[in-house]
Amino acid sequence: MSNGTAPSISGLSSSVGETVTLKGWLYNRRDSGKIRFLVLRDGSGYLQCVVVKKEVPEDVWESSGLLTQETSFEVTGVVREAPRQEGGVELGVTGLTVLSVCHDWPITPKEHGVDFLMSQRHLWLRSARQVAILKVRSEVESAIHDFYHSRGYTKIDSPILTPAACEGTSNLFETQYTEDEKAYLSQSGQLYLEPACAALGKVYCFGPTFRAEKSKTRRHLREFWMVEPEVAFMEIDGLLDLAEEFIKELTTRVLDRRKDDLKRLERDTTKLEATATRPFTRMTYREAIENLAGKGFPVKFGDDLGGDEETALTEGFDTPVLVTRYPSSIKAFYMQPDPADPEVALCVDVLAPEGYGELIGGSQRIHDHDLLLARIRQQELPIEAFQWYLDVRKYGTFPHSGFGMGLERFTAWMCGVPHLRECIPYPRMLYRIYP
Amino acid sequence: MSNGTAPSISGLSSSVGETVTLKGWLYNRRDSGKIRFLVLRDGSGYLQCVVVKKEVPEDVWESSGLLTQETSFEVTGVVREAPRQEGGVELGVTGLTVLSVCHDWPITPKEHGVDFLMSQRHLWLRSARQVAILKVRSEVESAIHDFYHSRGYTKIDSPILTPAACEGTSNLFETQYTEDEKAYLSQSGQLYLEPACAALGKVYCFGPTFRAEKSKTRRHLREFWMVEPEVAFMEIDGLLDLAEEFIKELTTRVLDRRKDDLKRLERDTTKLEATATRPFTRMTYREAIENLAGKGFPVKFGDDLGGDEETALTEGFDTPVLVTRYPSSIKAFYMQPDPADPEVALCVDVLAPEGYGELIGGSQRIHDHDLLLARIRQQELPIEAFQWYLDVRKYGTFPHSGFGMGLERFTAWMCGVPHLRECIPYPRMLYRIYP
Repeated sequence: MSNGTAPSISGLSSSVGETVTLKGWLYNRRDSGKIRFLVLRDGSGYLQCVVVKKEVPEDVWESSGLLTQETSFEVTGVVREAPRQEGGVELGVTGLTVLSVCHDWPITPKEHGVDFLMSQRHLWLRSARQVAILKVRSEVESAIHDFYHSRGYTKIDSPILTPAACEGTSNLFETQYTEDEKAYLSQSGQLYLEPACAALGKVYCFGPTFRAEKSKTRRHLREFWMVEPEVAFMEIDGLLDLAEEFIKELTTRVLDRRKDDLKRLERDTTKLEATATRPFTRMTYREAIENLAGKGFPVKFGDDLGGDEETALTEGFDTPVLVTRYPSSIKAFYMQPDPADPEVALCVDVLAPEGYGELIGGSQRIHDHDLLLARIRQQELPIEAFQWYLDVRKYGTFPHSGFGMGLERFTAWMCGVPHLRECIPYPRMLYRIYP
Repeated sequence: MSNGTAPSISGLSSSVGETVTLKGWLYNRRDSGKIRFLVLRDGSGYLQCVVVKKEVPEDVWESSGLLTQETSFEVTGVVREAPRQEGGVELGVTGLTVLSVCHDWPITPKEHGVDFLMSQRHLWLRSARQVAILKVRSEVESAIHDFYHSRGYTKIDSPILTPAACEGTSNLFETQYTEDEKAYLSQSGQLYLEPACAALGKVYCFGPTFRAEKSKTRRHLREFWMVEPEVAFMEIDGLLDLAEEFIKELTTRVLDRRKDDLKRLERDTTKLEATATRPFTRMTYREAIENLAGKGFPVKFGDDLGGDEETALTEGFDTPVLVTRYPSSIKAFYMQPDPADPEVALCVDVLAPEGYGELIGGSQRIHDHDLLLARIRQQELPIEAFQWYLDVRKYGTFPHSGFGMGLERFTAWMCGVPHLRECIPYPRMLYRIYP
């Protein structure tokens, strides 16, 4: 028996009048004398199934009375229009078989502590809110692939096991690669994308990245997914356009295709709609610190911007804000200096509205071999480990640019969810690796 | 300056008669007196650029004479039809600017040793053969996402950092998660998909997996990408259909869209075309060992099938072969026994033709709590580590099935490339982690 072509709840609106058989779990049940209203969930949606005592065989009525939350069952019935129901249909039940009765389902409607829910993550996933968030996440992933694939990018899977650190050696997970050699879990695929964009022009990677941070804030995961495009011959202005176009396309896709999920999450989509349609605000770091000074923040050139500053900067804007040209001193060693203002780098941070923080960080890369070498020396990074990276500048060098975007941060913003831990199926945080 | 809308070689056939400017690297050059034929590559394709001395300014002629392999340059000219050229066009050059001359490009046409090429992987990627393989790989990835997304699957990213082993503790990379706790790099996302398919019905993961194997064969990578679907209420027959449909769709996509790359790889596509269109052969393990006995292999029930046996089994078939119902004793603990033949498991291995080995391994999973518990005990696995996995069977259990397919193995077969190391951008093998 296969369910390859089995009907699912999400496709039922085209089956009105037909008899269908569905399998899933009981999400909710309401008894009203001689009628029972069962809500079946099958992962694709939720369906009200109406059991009327006098219309079904006695064993069906009896079975429907056994259903507890998360009991798996098979139900047969006639699909009928029900405009007030999600999906516009409900099922008039004619048959019902209990597959496995669920006893003592641990996730009850009462408020659970976060620790409890996290330890039950494998079950908590079944909650309607978690299902909605994970569907938005999956839609964003699909939109990311479509965005790059339709534009002729080649996906280049950067390695996770790396011999050296991309941006220093702190916060790295370490493993013994062979008896004599250690490896570190990648924090970014960028260094590996740069040689690949010399081969393929436009490339991107999208996979897990790792930070062994000791931080416990809602903004940090130790394992998270990041998408990183890298484009040969693209300079900073092209990069800003790419970042804006990218966020617009992803946002449009979520608004178009995950409307029901956003509704279930009670997401106010005003700012998402603005993001999908209106040009983003762009400002330089120098403009940003002036703006912040006007708002009472004592920020001076050379200071990094923290979460409060980022939130203050985006106040009053309905779309993300592109902050460009940060001081080189507070940015990564590989960023191209601005020829018109050598203290700053040709870089960008894209800040989400509504306090969701940095969505994207990117830059034009240094393409002059000797300048890059000087920077590596200045940061006291091990030159031999970066030899292959320097080679990109040795053989037919070229300007190029790229950025990174964290999937969970973006998903959190789409969903209006404050905690990243709900935006990944199995979050990995400090003191949290089970299940 | 942006290249967001810059023309690329792959799109030139619609620009015949137009003047375009392109950037890229010199792939090849042939001088014929007062005419120079330059082959420009930009990652999207290859373009013959014709420089005629008497038709260009002297500095353009001079510049074209400086071009060495992998020199980056910008070229302007008129697109014209050239039926014998790849893409059907060539460029009549009117302007040319050298961006960066490449000296001593290390990868020459002479035969290099594998060790040398692997140590130059970041440059070797620019070779036409490597570009073609990586484009096929990327196309397969895109087809994988489209296959599942269009069928309503939700992508569930299984964690890489896991507290315990999926199938025993051997061959695991280990890392210190916190001061007191170790973590291991995932070998499979399956265990994490099973609870997720109870939430979302149809799910898949697709990401890197890790095996700290000591093996040096051409069939082994220590880090490779695996796609794994998992479907609630799907049983073994549905799984076989899903696997066949999946391979058919990916193969069709590669044949349709990567024709030029397959040609460059001199791939004989006869068996790929058969795979795309003809039903796959299916046989049980019991039939397989009879078949092998007839071919002189001394295999008896309970023996695992090695590479030679797999190759022998697929001989004479143009499509992959599905071998089902292996003895439970040689398969993973979580596989559902066949009620009609309890010595065997409801599982499948899909073997590629042409000696490319196992593409897919999958099974229906044990959904009875007590049977699974007995198996975990029998294998002496730590029960407390599997408590959450057992919970899937405790609360509204349901039949479910899934499989895993290695991306590099599939790509190798598509490309007709014997070594997996060429089918991933930066291979990780024993004694090979650089670059």
